[in-house]
Amino acid sequence: MDLHVFAVQGIPEVTRDVDLAGLIAGAVTRERRDVEDGDIFVVAQKIVSKAEGAVVQLDQVMPSAMAAQWAADHGKDARMVEVVLRESRRIVRMDRDVLITETRHGFVCANAGVDASNVPPGFVTVLPGDPDASAERLRGALGAKFGRTIGVIVSDTFGRPWREGVVNVALGVAGVQPLIDYRGAVDSFGRSLKSTVIALADELASAAEIVTRKAAGTPVAIVRGAAEWIAHGTGRALVRDAERDLFR
Amino acid sequence: MDLHVFAVQGIPEVTRDVDLAGLIAGAVTRERRDVEDGDIFVVAQKIVSKAEGAVVQLDQVMPSAMAAQWAADHGKDARMVEVVLRESRRIVRMDRDVLITETRHGFVCANAGVDASNVPPGFVTVLPGDPDASAERLRGALGAKFGRTIGVIVSDTFGRPWREGVVNVALGVAGVQPLIDYRGAVDSFGRSLKSTVIALADELASAAEIVTRKAAGTPVAIVRGAAEWIAHGTGRALVRDAERDLFR
Repeated sequence: MDLHVFAVQGIPEVTRDVDLAGLIAGAVTRERRDVEDGDIFVVAQKIVSKAEGAVVQLDQVMPSAMAAQWAADHGKDARMVEVVLRESRRIVRMDRDVLITETRHGFVCANAGVDASNVPPGFVTVLPGDPDASAERLRGALGAKFGRTIGVIVSDTFGRPWREGVVNVALGVAGVQPLIDYRGAVDSFGRSLKSTVIALADELASAAEIVTRKAAGTPVAIVRGAAEWIAHGTGRALVRDAERDLFR
Repeated sequence: MDLHVFAVQGIPEVTRDVDLAGLIAGAVTRERRDVEDGDIFVVAQKIVSKAEGAVVQLDQVMPSAMAAQWAADHGKDARMVEVVLRESRRIVRMDRDVLITETRHGFVCANAGVDASNVPPGFVTVLPGDPDASAERLRGALGAKFGRTIGVIVSDTFGRPWREGVVNVALGVAGVQPLIDYRGAVDSFGRSLKSTVIALADELASAAEIVTRKAAGTPVAIVRGAAEWIAHGTGRALVRDAERDLFR
């Protein structure tokens, strides 16, 4: 019943069109880690975006008037603000110096996930176009390389209303059940349970972040001991429908 | 660098004024688990509330007119709605059949954390009055029993805007750094990092939830491998100040 979480160290700098599964598998092998059926690979969005070419060269971006004005008012790079707006389908908050938007995928996060950290100067990464497809490609390739049935979560750190700090969440999911649904289950007194749906994939992403955080610059971790939740699943299932969301 | 997370099984039903640390320590010992310096005990709010008598007998609650009306409109127990309102200092959303409030502590969650699951019929638990003090008492008592320097997180599952499902978060913290602050740190290209403050205690709570979820009715887990973050800390630090919060 125990959970074991460890970082995969020694993954080199990721560039466009690299064989990302190959880089990850090579690092796992060099570290003499085994891979077991049921292992869940949690992979930071950043290296997935780099491998997929989800990278924008800022000097080729022409900011709109709104991007230029807001950037000037808040000491931001207008080109980066423009990229954020292009990645967004709705602006949730544009206040003080924070730009929170809903991405094309439906994720609500700061700067639409556009990020300049750990990217060469003059470039920013954007979120993968289809994180579930990214996760599924990695799941297939890593599973084949190791001959194991594994799960993959493509993760990123998101802020939350009302609470300080960011936590890692699952953007893309493959081979893992994203939600555990206890609706209909009863407690020891025969009453229905309060917390009926658990966001398992987000909790797995958070567990992985703890070990990757410890090893700075380590974008992959493996969670072992959650094999009973290896199943078909998507990250899309974690995005709340607008109709069900009180916060829209 | 690895993280190891395991549930503490065999904790009996918790009642008022029980020695909660003694119950937890007894279960750890019966399971032949050792305790190491740096272990972090994640304890579900529910058993803390029960031990502290943070329990309300519904037939002694007289609903206000608003509670009675809203309960009637939404098929709820008016006495429970009344308890929720008493535990709240602000109503965040009161729409469809969801009541999201800000508790006296500043937590924003469904039903102010009032919960009827795993409580005898006719009773509900409320959140501990001071979860940091609860965590600190457990930290002192468990640390003394095992002769170890440990951390304690008192946790509960909260929903989030925009995403499906609930995740475990830290309400009370003692002996653990709740946030890791990377402001000022730089990436491999010398640029400042995007995700500057990590909500470590929430991620630890989420990691623990995965194993307690696997063992239904198991309200305590131990996270091992995070000893470098044993330090003074509070759960209060995870509650965003109103002035800093774009969502108020």
